Amino acid sequence: MTILVTGASGFLGARVVAALAGSEDVVGLRRPGSQRTGAPAAGPRAFIDCDLGDAPRLARVMRELRPAAVIHLAWFAEHGVCWHAPENLDCVAAGLALVRLAAEHGCRRFVGAGTCAEYDWSYDRLTERVTPCAPRTLYGAAKLGLGLVAERFAETAGLSLAWARYGFLFGPGEAPRRLVSGAIRALAAGNDFACSAGTQIRDFVHVDDAASATAAILRSEVTGPVNVGAGEAMPVRRIVEQIAELVGGAAVPRFGALPARSDDPPALVLDLARLTDEVGWRPRRSLREALAETVERVRGEAS
Amino acid sequence: MTILVTGASGFLGARVVAALAGSEDVVGLRRPGSQRTGAPAAGPRAFIDCDLGDAPRLARVMRELRPAAVIHLAWFAEHGVCWHAPENLDCVAAGLALVRLAAEHGCRRFVGAGTCAEYDWSYDRLTERVTPCAPRTLYGAAKLGLGLVAERFAETAGLSLAWARYGFLFGPGEAPRRLVSGAIRALAAGNDFACSAGTQIRDFVHVDDAASATAAILRSEVTGPVNVGAGEAMPVRRIVEQIAELVGGAAVPRFGALPARSDDPPALVLDLARLTDEVGWRPRRSLREALAETVERVRGEAS
Repeated sequence: MTILVTGASGFLGARVVAALAGSEDVVGLRRPGSQRTGAPAAGPRAFIDCDLGDAPRLARVMRELRPAAVIHLAWFAEHGVCWHAPENLDCVAAGLALVRLAAEHGCRRFVGAGTCAEYDWSYDRLTERVTPCAPRTLYGAAKLGLGLVAERFAETAGLSLAWARYGFLFGPGEAPRRLVSGAIRALAAGNDFACSAGTQIRDFVHVDDAASATAAILRSEVTGPVNVGAGEAMPVRRIVEQIAELVGGAAVPRFGALPARSDDPPALVLDLARLTDEVGWRPRRSLREALAETVERVRGEAS
Repeated sequence: MTILVTGASGFLGARVVAALAGSEDVVGLRRPGSQRTGAPAAGPRAFIDCDLGDAPRLARVMRELRPAAVIHLAWFAEHGVCWHAPENLDCVAAGLALVRLAAEHGCRRFVGAGTCAEYDWSYDRLTERVTPCAPRTLYGAAKLGLGLVAERFAETAGLSLAWARYGFLFGPGEAPRRLVSGAIRALAAGNDFACSAGTQIRDFVHVDDAASATAAILRSEVTGPVNVGAGEAMPVRRIVEQIAELVGGAAVPRFGALPARSDDPPALVLDLARLTDEVGWRPRRSLREALAETVERVRGEAS
């Protein structure tokens, strides 16, 4: 059966394609002109260049391809801008068009990419269908809105739909200004790494593990929201300390050099019971092992 | 200042235009080929025929009109079908396009039409930002999704946005198969009116009162969700009994002739504190007076 992966050249999408490519017929949809980031070992059978906002072209692609399953990862993801960019509205409309076309052309299984930013962050433990959703950002609202509508639509259309809510992804190919990537690059270059005190607790997950979990969700029968994390929630400070240990050298993290953001919640911990018990997925390595692999690969990227 | 009303020839839209037309410069947007229902006394300065799904045309209209305020009422509303129709997805996309264009072209105030179907109906008292939202229907999910995204978007765009969540509308011009209209038509024609036992409690509001409340919301500075009802939640049975009394004649309601729907919640009561205290709006007549006016007008329509 043909699996269509949108955002197939993105940070997570390239890894999802790699996770599926050995055993499935995978076709990747990518934005015209998009670059592959952190090229994975295995590619899809084919790439289709298609802007999801190009409705007639998307309709033609879906009519011709008739994928049995869709993993929809494409989104506007420019670091530092994406939280409040109006492009989020286009992404909602494109996602709605995609899920409708998928159902119309015989798709049986759809996995969409949500985010832990859909939840009300005044709660520190985030459980699907228990913790209220109250996104602070336009990005979180757009993901939540699309997920809500897509889920109800799928029920009316006989389409099995799961909505993966990802924790904080890191890994090779991550944008250089993001925390893990930025810390490795700075410390490996011999520069001290300025950050906040790092007391906030987060659920960081390696992009390869998130991709493996996504593939497992696709193959499961779980419907509705399902959290994706590594299950090792820990303070940001501990993550950066581990990176510093792994990098070695004389440069050090400077905790507290940057102010804490006043709206930064003290703890965000994903409840992974659905992912572990219903999907049956667990990471095959510790967060430290995942960080070690990332340090090695990002050093390679930077040099 | 110019106020654009979408869905201006619809059941509620025509009344909102009438409520504003005396004191404001109102332009009505209507779907090409749409008919005016229950024509109100006062019309807008102009009608513009524009399908909200026609993106280039909508962009041109908004660029030329540059409305200072928008009341967005247009939606797919075919009775009996609209709860689960895929057209709800188009309505989300169109609403997102509209609010974005409004902000881009200088609009300062936006009122969108939500619904009490956005709430979790396992609660019987529905309070904005307190009662969880968990729509059972695609219609409710689509309204909730659009409202969530539009509200966050408006914050980023400096646009003041309120989201009216309407109770159960009735009044002249209502689709003949709906409860109030159907009961009046049947009883006035001398036919018994078959309905369920009618124990379920609902918040029915006359469309003219809902229109008056919508105009008041537009003029207020309230942002986010605000319930719109009449504040006289009562059993459906009591509504139908009052209609029978008002109609007179020999025909009677036959309570229990139709089965209760298993998923019909026993009570849905809108908390109107925001509407009363923050918007400062109250209905000027009782529900019985509103029903009496409706009986008279619907009899006129039917004859």
